[in-house]
Amino acid sequence: MLDKAPNQKLAGLLEKFGAALASGDIDAAVSLFQDDCYWRDLVAFTWNIRTMEGKEQIRDMLKSRLADVGPSNWAVAEGEDAAEADGLLEGWISFETKVARGYGQIRLKDGKIWTLLTTMAELKGHEEKAGFTRPLGAKHGHGKGRKSWKEEREEEIAELGFSRQPYCVIVGGGQGGIALGARLKQLGVSTIIVEKNERPGDSWRKRYKSLCLHDPVWYDHLPYIDFPKNWPVFSPKDKIGDWLEMYTRVMELNYWTSTTAKKASYDEAAGEWTVVVERDGKEIVLKPKQLVLATGMSGRPNLPKFPGMEKFRGDQHHSSRHPGPDAYAGKKAVVIGSNNSAHDICAALWEAGADVTMVQRSSTHIVRSETLMEVGLSALYSEQAVRNGMTTAKADLIFASLPYKILHEFQIPLYRQMKDRDQKFYADLEKAGFLLDWGDDGSGLFMKYLRRGSGYYIDVGACDLVIDGSIKLKSGSGVKEITEDAVLLEDGTRLPADVIVYATGYGSMNGWAAELISREVADKVGKCWGLGSNTTKDPGPWEGEQRNMWKPTQQEGLWFHGGNLHQSRHYSQFLALQLKARQEGIPTPVYGLQEVHHKG
Amino acid sequence: MLDKAPNQKLAGLLEKFGAALASGDIDAAVSLFQDDCYWRDLVAFTWNIRTMEGKEQIRDMLKSRLADVGPSNWAVAEGEDAAEADGLLEGWISFETKVARGYGQIRLKDGKIWTLLTTMAELKGHEEKAGFTRPLGAKHGHGKGRKSWKEEREEEIAELGFSRQPYCVIVGGGQGGIALGARLKQLGVSTIIVEKNERPGDSWRKRYKSLCLHDPVWYDHLPYIDFPKNWPVFSPKDKIGDWLEMYTRVMELNYWTSTTAKKASYDEAAGEWTVVVERDGKEIVLKPKQLVLATGMSGRPNLPKFPGMEKFRGDQHHSSRHPGPDAYAGKKAVVIGSNNSAHDICAALWEAGADVTMVQRSSTHIVRSETLMEVGLSALYSEQAVRNGMTTAKADLIFASLPYKILHEFQIPLYRQMKDRDQKFYADLEKAGFLLDWGDDGSGLFMKYLRRGSGYYIDVGACDLVIDGSIKLKSGSGVKEITEDAVLLEDGTRLPADVIVYATGYGSMNGWAAELISREVADKVGKCWGLGSNTTKDPGPWEGEQRNMWKPTQQEGLWFHGGNLHQSRHYSQFLALQLKARQEGIPTPVYGLQEVHHKG
Repeated sequence: MLDKAPNQKLAGLLEKFGAALASGDIDAAVSLFQDDCYWRDLVAFTWNIRTMEGKEQIRDMLKSRLADVGPSNWAVAEGEDAAEADGLLEGWISFETKVARGYGQIRLKDGKIWTLLTTMAELKGHEEKAGFTRPLGAKHGHGKGRKSWKEEREEEIAELGFSRQPYCVIVGGGQGGIALGARLKQLGVSTIIVEKNERPGDSWRKRYKSLCLHDPVWYDHLPYIDFPKNWPVFSPKDKIGDWLEMYTRVMELNYWTSTTAKKASYDEAAGEWTVVVERDGKEIVLKPKQLVLATGMSGRPNLPKFPGMEKFRGDQHHSSRHPGPDAYAGKKAVVIGSNNSAHDICAALWEAGADVTMVQRSSTHIVRSETLMEVGLSALYSEQAVRNGMTTAKADLIFASLPYKILHEFQIPLYRQMKDRDQKFYADLEKAGFLLDWGDDGSGLFMKYLRRGSGYYIDVGACDLVIDGSIKLKSGSGVKEITEDAVLLEDGTRLPADVIVYATGYGSMNGWAAELISREVADKVGKCWGLGSNTTKDPGPWEGEQRNMWKPTQQEGLWFHGGNLHQSRHYSQFLALQLKARQEGIPTPVYGLQEVHHKG
Repeated sequence: MLDKAPNQKLAGLLEKFGAALASGDIDAAVSLFQDDCYWRDLVAFTWNIRTMEGKEQIRDMLKSRLADVGPSNWAVAEGEDAAEADGLLEGWISFETKVARGYGQIRLKDGKIWTLLTTMAELKGHEEKAGFTRPLGAKHGHGKGRKSWKEEREEEIAELGFSRQPYCVIVGGGQGGIALGARLKQLGVSTIIVEKNERPGDSWRKRYKSLCLHDPVWYDHLPYIDFPKNWPVFSPKDKIGDWLEMYTRVMELNYWTSTTAKKASYDEAAGEWTVVVERDGKEIVLKPKQLVLATGMSGRPNLPKFPGMEKFRGDQHHSSRHPGPDAYAGKKAVVIGSNNSAHDICAALWEAGADVTMVQRSSTHIVRSETLMEVGLSALYSEQAVRNGMTTAKADLIFASLPYKILHEFQIPLYRQMKDRDQKFYADLEKAGFLLDWGDDGSGLFMKYLRRGSGYYIDVGACDLVIDGSIKLKSGSGVKEITEDAVLLEDGTRLPADVIVYATGYGSMNGWAAELISREVADKVGKCWGLGSNTTKDPGPWEGEQRNMWKPTQQEGLWFHGGNLHQSRHYSQFLALQLKARQEGIPTPVYGLQEVHHKG
């Protein structure tokens, strides 16, 4: 029999907390937190994505928002049991606000709140039609001139963007745009997704042929339709492409393929965007109220400018344009870069019989895939987690409940464990001349991803090829120039080359805003991504949440959406609810709109 | 706390049963059954689909099969609790045979077995790769010349049917062929599905435009990928078409579109079929070991031959060719027939503004959709069932556990309840002249479906139009002849017509065998479908299972697969396991191969 005592403790605390909030007694509410405390809110209280750190920030938020939010009905979530161990009590909670139902996670230390996560689950009166409320499909009864599902769908396709304007336009139809589009469809927010490629999924299909997801399947589910049990752990790129295409169709998204967004401008008075797109060569003007840039973390190739590049007589391209190794058997290949793409491409070139050199210009964080899965992800995202009853929704919320301010403290011991476990592997890499790092504070891969979105390789085999010299390595020296037939390094090394691949990463999402809208607006909203951790490529000051992602920006009606499949799934829920509330005219006063510390 | 006593009772019985079987003591095993008893086996004991009715049949089966099967490890299924009420104890069980793992359902009365269902879940050593054993996807490690997922898939597509022969060919790519194809793919049985239409799902898309599934979503899931929570209760035809198309793609089925199976013959000596198909106008010869006809219950239009049809100057077509009502606004339409298609088509024609007459030649069984869902299906297939923890797999097994011999006894009270509930509705229909029936023994729709596959309409609104005269009804008289511009009935009525729709149903699946293979083989395997219930259109003698469906036939290597989505899902598991065992050379001695009482 499960110990129900933690439930009673938690219920007792929630009763006090709820009563204090109901009576407007902010001091009493704040007194239930311990001094070292965090309240992360996803939209429910702040109409923002925001972590309040410490009692003063919590007090300030409540002063500003409590009366308007009107929270009530705090309770231990139905069907869930709180658990207590080593003085830490954890539990799932539910609550309501005036306009929404919420769900959350809480951790108590010594009976006081250490961390609190509050999330908006659904807007009252605008719940998604699912389960008991799913549509009937067939039209029962009878009526003259009724249309079939197909006719209605064809009508929508013919009208939307022409005789009828969508409320929202999403630029970019990768997993981010697709997941958000699906949520908006379910919420009844008319949306067009604009994608430059010919088919949904092409943003994966068009990359180098050996590419597979580096994140495992349990981490990658889209909303509404899970991958089946027979789906591979690491999806090959064309297979994930097919899945995205299928998903787009069966979720009935209005997805405009072969369409380029050319220009967007905002009419502040009308509260409306003018978005000029070119679809199959024809210009169309869209007039949405909301514009979401979901062009991706990896959408804008960062092509370096080395002297002499124009003279090179072989093939040269950014990694995103790399066709795969087939044409390069017996050829000399130089790959500039040492992160995920560089390793994948080097390995594939070697497998195809090319002579490959990797140029490592700065240190790289390496984790073996197996180790990362077992040590880093298995508690939340693994087959064992599924068997233990962990659901994707819960895993996402647990992940979201760890405040960014202290997330690295949870991560550092995990990466120490990985380093120990794979000691020999790392020693061998260093012996081969590879420059390793573990992030500025040893917090490893996930923090690097959140802070800068780069700087690592999840090893699926290429490291062994570096270790045994199959992939030649030149590390610690930059590129001086490119000649007709070689790469010259700063240390004087000359690397003859038939093909050069620039695996040099991607530019900021903000660049898209500059290109599509204007430099002025791009600078006004400032840099995207990163936490302000004051580590390499993530300058301070501390911001507490990822800059500009999934939340209001300094530009009315402009939003950024993106990230890996996990983030696309999880944060699309909160972005969709923010857009739905605006469409319905529900007041959405934003608490703590981010300041801009770095231009785009 | 749940009462665990029933578990102990069940475990006790299983221990005795298992011990008796293990020691070969058939009398002791049979003595554990009550006199009135049924053992339904899906492949696990009989390599057949077979119900043993009464102790003598059970004894006979065990005498023939026990030594070979070698059952063991009988237990209450893990994680399941038996339940007891009103002297009836029900529970889930697991067991093993020498070659397989099995799962089943059992009902005890007074401590003895009343019904036993044994099913084969998986073949040992040939388990599906799923969950913990799902494929890795990415190729970790390294190796010269490795192929990508896409290259391997393209290679398979290029080779299969040309340089490499499939083990199995499925003729017909509707839900039946697709569900079976998916199971075979997971089991590693190389298969080509041959479909005459241009795209998977076209067999639905090409039907009349108002068509929606008459079965609800919970009953319709395909294997491996469930419909999402937002999926409509009754799928519109084009939407289910899209789902089937996408399913076919993401499950990586080898699905040959625009391909017609023209001729098939079996070489008994080689144990191999020669199947001539025409694909995009080109003839290809396939040489599979197994041939599955999945051409569907509703694949062979039954076009009546009325005198004068050739003289009719308007449009006339079978319901399967009916394009929808759009061209017939203001026109006179006569629909011959009074089952599902006839009602749907009449209603759509009326809605589009046609003048519609339905010709009812014999009585029809009518149930209101809502009533059928609530009274007939809700315990197993409904949102409430899902909330109560019912899974599709369990619902299918519970359904399968009710022996056909007594199934009508379970059904009769349900249909009495429906009749009571909708008393006024039925009275109104009769007042309008509609001829009603409830099946020969009052057992209603599902028994009609199993016995003859026809004779009913699930009302979604057309009946109101019949009742209020919007759809004109002529009942009780056959068609005498067709003239240039009218339908003449036997009672002398003349129905002027611009369009005649023959909603006259479909021929036996057996007809496909005659057409594709030979009349001789079709007669050898005999009639498909029906139970031998000696009711209208299902002549005796009693057969105990549906004739020729999903199980060995009198023709080596020839199989029939089909039925609604539920049956396609459920029985594809057992047909796939039978085919897999044969591919692997596991001996599959068939117990009780059906005798043929009716030619095709």
